[in-house]
Amino acid sequence: MNSIEQIINEEIRVVENGSITTPAGFFAGGLHCGIKRKKLDLGWLYSVVPATAACVYTTNQFQAPPLIVTKEGIEKSQKIQGVIVNSGIANACTGNQGLSNAYEMRKLFAEQMNIQEYLVAVSSTGVIGEQLPMEKIKSGISEIGDIQRQNDPSEFEKAILTTDTFSKHVCVQLQIDGKTVTIGGTAKGSGMIHPNMATMLGFITTDAVVKEADLQIALKQVVDKTFNMITVDGDTSTNDMVLLLANQQANHQELSILHPQWQLFMEGLEMVCRSLAKQIAKDGEGATKLIEVQVQGASSCEDAKKVAKSIIGSNLVKTAVFGEDPNWGRIIAAIGYSGAQLNPEHLKVRLGPFTVIEKGLPFPFSEAEAKHYLQQNEVIQIFADLYCGGGKATAWGCDLTYDYVKINASYRT
Amino acid sequence: MNSIEQIINEEIRVVENGSITTPAGFFAGGLHCGIKRKKLDLGWLYSVVPATAACVYTTNQFQAPPLIVTKEGIEKSQKIQGVIVNSGIANACTGNQGLSNAYEMRKLFAEQMNIQEYLVAVSSTGVIGEQLPMEKIKSGISEIGDIQRQNDPSEFEKAILTTDTFSKHVCVQLQIDGKTVTIGGTAKGSGMIHPNMATMLGFITTDAVVKEADLQIALKQVVDKTFNMITVDGDTSTNDMVLLLANQQANHQELSILHPQWQLFMEGLEMVCRSLAKQIAKDGEGATKLIEVQVQGASSCEDAKKVAKSIIGSNLVKTAVFGEDPNWGRIIAAIGYSGAQLNPEHLKVRLGPFTVIEKGLPFPFSEAEAKHYLQQNEVIQIFADLYCGGGKATAWGCDLTYDYVKINASYRT
Repeated sequence: MNSIEQIINEEIRVVENGSITTPAGFFAGGLHCGIKRKKLDLGWLYSVVPATAACVYTTNQFQAPPLIVTKEGIEKSQKIQGVIVNSGIANACTGNQGLSNAYEMRKLFAEQMNIQEYLVAVSSTGVIGEQLPMEKIKSGISEIGDIQRQNDPSEFEKAILTTDTFSKHVCVQLQIDGKTVTIGGTAKGSGMIHPNMATMLGFITTDAVVKEADLQIALKQVVDKTFNMITVDGDTSTNDMVLLLANQQANHQELSILHPQWQLFMEGLEMVCRSLAKQIAKDGEGATKLIEVQVQGASSCEDAKKVAKSIIGSNLVKTAVFGEDPNWGRIIAAIGYSGAQLNPEHLKVRLGPFTVIEKGLPFPFSEAEAKHYLQQNEVIQIFADLYCGGGKATAWGCDLTYDYVKINASYRT
Repeated sequence: MNSIEQIINEEIRVVENGSITTPAGFFAGGLHCGIKRKKLDLGWLYSVVPATAACVYTTNQFQAPPLIVTKEGIEKSQKIQGVIVNSGIANACTGNQGLSNAYEMRKLFAEQMNIQEYLVAVSSTGVIGEQLPMEKIKSGISEIGDIQRQNDPSEFEKAILTTDTFSKHVCVQLQIDGKTVTIGGTAKGSGMIHPNMATMLGFITTDAVVKEADLQIALKQVVDKTFNMITVDGDTSTNDMVLLLANQQANHQELSILHPQWQLFMEGLEMVCRSLAKQIAKDGEGATKLIEVQVQGASSCEDAKKVAKSIIGSNLVKTAVFGEDPNWGRIIAAIGYSGAQLNPEHLKVRLGPFTVIEKGLPFPFSEAEAKHYLQQNEVIQIFADLYCGGGKATAWGCDLTYDYVKINASYRT
């Protein structure tokens, strides 16, 4: 992970091997309950006290039952103490039966933990349109007992995966009012990834003390710059969400947008979300390379986002990166159809260290060296300067490969 | 071609083996001038008299020099008599040099044909960012002499191709004022195909007599329902256009929107454009299947288009069709993120003859039979009824295959 993460603020420290249970008062684990054939498929997360909760959800109009249930719970008290997640079946497009299964799953975990039902968030990911095997889930939940002894965040990280090839985690620490605040996170998702919450689940924990309303503002702002700036295939799923829990164990003065160190907390949160977003993009189905597109000089941040997403979403750019072909024509075409305001006579484009377009025209570069850059690096950077204003944005994605086709042509068989 | 075309109006007759030179007074041919290694790369089209011209162009903001030159010519007199097209190099992102090359190419062909320069349309398709080899083009154009003897529309059809695997043509006839009117067409394009004119060229000829302004209206309306409803990879190119020439040789009363048979002419034109659009989608890079998505019950035609394009553009739907997997969950997800107004509790989806969603929920069907349908058919149909209103749209695309990745990972090498 750290190879693709840059430290921007020296006051923020990356915790090696840190996770969602590094912040004080969080426990997590995962087990196999039988939805999948062999792999872990049921994960749980627990806070010693009800944590202030913020959540962002998919914009897909078909929202799956677990989302409806989780949303309802958070709206009741803005607090969550436990999270139960299954992978393998998404419990989406499952009608009334699916909704009552989601409620049932929440109730089972609440009873097992001896907490109120509305303090439990429920989440499911996997195939759409199948009902959950409730007997298996019930039996799995009944195995969750001694949270201290069973605590193993790496098992939670594994239990939420579908077609991911590696589990994802990150953890940072910073000082607020002289107290150490820790922020940890994990996420899953590698197909159906696109701006606005795709087949993606993100769970972020912190022991910070944060004012409820401001926690939601913080999460929304940061998600817009991170998770919503990745795309694997342009598809947006029915199930997905990022949940942020702050359980107040760090014992500093309450953070709010008025606190002098609010910005530091925001940067720590952004670092966690950016790292997870990049890990997801890097693990895009079939991907061999992470692509990072940085756009500047746009007439607005919205325009910068349009251009960045247009480039990162282009199947032709993605296949060119896979083919290690410095085919800048496809980049310029993607900029041209982005819909953003352009200044064609001033446009500048770089592929890694190589300027390929200057003042809107091809700029001489060594094809051999550019090809070498594409061959030798796992992270490919594309920069575009539109010379229209001060708007900036960064987006992440991955190459489009034979394996993407293979994985998705045979997902259910 | 005819296997994928249905006759809607009995007054319209498909001309077997008809082409752009079936309408009276048109001649066309193609030759090899050396831009490509072996294949034909220079095509020409000529009308015995200046033809009334209508044209629609790419919406990509980086418009290539040939487009600028053609647009300028048409704007001068709304007439075109000759068309010169090269494939292999797109003459896009080529700056002032590219612009003067496009003018030069126009001038060379005008001189060769002994017509005014502004009566010549110029078109280029292929790799972006390289300059045209003008000596080769000059030498090629000098070989175009006896248009009657050299007339061979199949060579024109071949000379405009890039990664296409077959040439495309269609021709229909209908009666206007008791006179036979013929409409012929050809097109190219198989990658960078997306709504709003992608790497796509379309040339349509007719001997009809049509009022200038109404010819442009007719073309725009028909293109919106046909060429702008196909997508191969979501990328929109810098070069592309559909040119319609009407050379008045059929000698009936001038057609205009007030003529009683205007609708018949429009239907003939739509049939030609729809057939070409479907041929392009079928020949999508690496495609093994043509996908047709029909949406009805949308709250508006715009919404119906959004849903149809969302489904046809989904990489996950495309790979599922390639994998012959009746994975309707991906169809419903694509409908959900289309942005159209939905009525989730009434949604109905069919995959070929199989209802897979009824009232928004999975409807029991035989997976084995549905798989058999996907395996046995080259044209896969998806129907969605949104139950929100009367809006309808149809879109066409293709599956996403290993060969798409192969073709685009190695296009320039």
